[in-house]
Amino acid sequence: MKENEQSVSNSWNPWNVIHPPVSVIGLGMMGSALAQTFLKEGHQTTVWNRTAGKADALRKQGAKVASTVNEAIAASPMVAICVLDYGTVHEILEESGEILAGRAIVNLTNGTPAQARRTAAWVAGRGAEYLDGGIMAVPQMIGTTGALVLYSGSEKVFQTCQPTLKGLGTANFLGEDPGLAPLYDLALLSAMYGMFGGFFHATAMIRSEQIKAGAFTELAVPWLQTMAASLPRMAQAVDVGDHRTNVSSLSINQTGFVHFIEACRELGISAELMTPIQELISRGVAEGYGTDGLSRLVELIRNPASV
Amino acid sequence: MKENEQSVSNSWNPWNVIHPPVSVIGLGMMGSALAQTFLKEGHQTTVWNRTAGKADALRKQGAKVASTVNEAIAASPMVAICVLDYGTVHEILEESGEILAGRAIVNLTNGTPAQARRTAAWVAGRGAEYLDGGIMAVPQMIGTTGALVLYSGSEKVFQTCQPTLKGLGTANFLGEDPGLAPLYDLALLSAMYGMFGGFFHATAMIRSEQIKAGAFTELAVPWLQTMAASLPRMAQAVDVGDHRTNVSSLSINQTGFVHFIEACRELGISAELMTPIQELISRGVAEGYGTDGLSRLVELIRNPASV
Ligand SMILES: NC(=O)c1ccc[n+]([C@@H]2O[C@H](COP(=O)([O-])OP(=O)(O)OC[C@H]3O[C@@H](n4cnc5c(N)ncnc54)[C@H](OP(=O)(O)O)[C@@H]3O)[C@@H](O)[C@H]2O)c1
Ligand SMILES: NC(=O)c1ccc[n+]([C@@H]2O[C@H](COP(=O)([O-])OP(=O)(O)OC[C@H]3O[C@@H](n4cnc5c(N)ncnc54)[C@H](OP(=O)(O)O)[C@@H]3O)[C@@H](O)[C@H]2O)c1
Repeated sequence: MKENEQSVSNSWNPWNVIHPPVSVIGLGMMGSALAQTFLKEGHQTTVWNRTAGKADALRKQGAKVASTVNEAIAASPMVAICVLDYGTVHEILEESGEILAGRAIVNLTNGTPAQARRTAAWVAGRGAEYLDGGIMAVPQMIGTTGALVLYSGSEKVFQTCQPTLKGLGTANFLGEDPGLAPLYDLALLSAMYGMFGGFFHATAMIRSEQIKAGAFTELAVPWLQTMAASLPRMAQAVDVGDHRTNVSSLSINQTGFVHFIEACRELGISAELMTPIQELISRGVAEGYGTDGLSRLVELIRNPASV
Repeated sequence: MKENEQSVSNSWNPWNVIHPPVSVIGLGMMGSALAQTFLKEGHQTTVWNRTAGKADALRKQGAKVASTVNEAIAASPMVAICVLDYGTVHEILEESGEILAGRAIVNLTNGTPAQARRTAAWVAGRGAEYLDGGIMAVPQMIGTTGALVLYSGSEKVFQTCQPTLKGLGTANFLGEDPGLAPLYDLALLSAMYGMFGGFFHATAMIRSEQIKAGAFTELAVPWLQTMAASLPRMAQAVDVGDHRTNVSSLSINQTGFVHFIEACRELGISAELMTPIQELISRGVAEGYGTDGLSRLVELIRNPASV
């Protein structure tokens, strides 16, 4: 391990190899998957975890197990950190001294845009480069192109580390603002939760009539994929602020919802996942946007003062 | 028009032509689109609407305009009806006597499964055949394969009328229970509303940071399409009642939601479209399903007693 414990600022350039050494701090479900993938890809991988036992499996797979955070950081020019939250990131890193300087800190912990910006500033203050990452995948998918990982912050780090980061999944750089990765991450998650919620409601309706959910998905999946293709048109309406429509006005949707909620009652299922969108539509109509399309709803969410 | 005013029960078989005559009752936005499409396809098309003026444009396109409902019904072996709601369907048809007998009534009005079943029984009592239809498209799409129309009820009518119905869009027969078309229709709509709601929330987050919604959809559309592809797996969990997961438990989602709602507050946007799914997840955990996957939520919606 000695050859990696030197500072990255000396003449030996640790990036100058096909598989530069990497360190992984945090060996929860996700951190373990990251470390395992780096090992498989051929990186010399040094790991650290608060609960040391979680490193055992990785040691057997060839990982170097650091006994302190500083030892882990010192081992590699790129340090990936994936722990519970940003508070934990700071708890872990605050102890490390000038050892951080010159390294690339790739933080794959979930948080908010503001947290990412604060951590980026703190890391910069230690003379290190910061790249924030949002993993849009479960641990089982890490190492496949199906795992989308969003990055933002230091473009230099992204460029330098790209060959390494690509090993984790599809790497997408969003821009220099470190808040972008968590912003897109949270936004994509909310779109997913919405779609899942709608699907759960739909499936509850279908099951209440003793029909197999599997039969329903044969129609629902292509239907949702077709409807997803209509989102760029709505996004454009939002961007230009022109919500006029000749197809599906808020008023028409408001009327349709009455039947819809009636049908839920008839089928004996709760409409709890549907009433918020109904209320939002009604608020839009009440605020005088009845002839506008559904895209108008975005600004009603953005201005909670109008609630 | 005389040759079509005869009863369909006599020896002349009006189906025995490539483009059998059709009648359309109700010339709102959707009914007008249906009639126009039938005309374009080459059907002799007879129309009726309460407000007679709405037939003017269709007359110019070659439609025969009936002055009474009975005259419209008498004109064709297949009568499509597309009005405000089922109450209106009955208001319109109750006046017609034995003229209904032997005809195919294709009701494309939106309603609930129970309403469709009641109307099917009522139509059967008049000696006519009933096919219920759910149009999953806006009027502008009628006549293209992109317009999905779900049918249920008389399979005989569906088979006989299929060449005619295919002119409206992609025709999908769901089964003999007339309630199936409205059931699937409402279920698909709820899945769509959920996805749209999630997308609106996501877009509000993105816009609150001055990023273009259009840039976001470049990631969001493929992301949602990938996530939609995971729905059959969840549907299977629902069908077999096995909600175990090793990837995304209700507990993990519950924890993640705390950050998520915090980020919404930070960005100054309302979480109103997201809190119901958060509450449902928390209810699942509280009821002892913390280690189960998200698919468990379906039965919590189905049993509103547990609310
Ligand atoms: N799992 C997923 O599907 C997934 C997907 C995308 C993103 N993520 C994100 O990835 C990050 C890690 O998730 P995970 O699934 O790996 O979670 P996890 O299995 O619960 O692991 C949590 C990690 O944080 C460490 N930790 C917690 N509190 C600590 C403290 N006070 N000091 C030091 N270490 C502490 C834990 O160490 P101990 O082992 O000592 O407890 C463990 O290494 C989270 O931000 C999560 O949102 C996860
Ligand atoms: N538009 C869509 O995007 C769409 C999509 C899928 C399904 N649908 C369904 O299609 C059906 C019709 O929708 P639409 O968009 O055509 O609505 P619309 O433009 O509002 O037309 C409503 C129709 O119902 C008639 N009507 C209402 N009350 C009546 C009464 N008491 N007696 C007689 N006729 C009456 C109207 O006649 P008057 O002209 O005399 O008022 C008109 O023909 C609805 O069930 C709707 O849910 C519509």
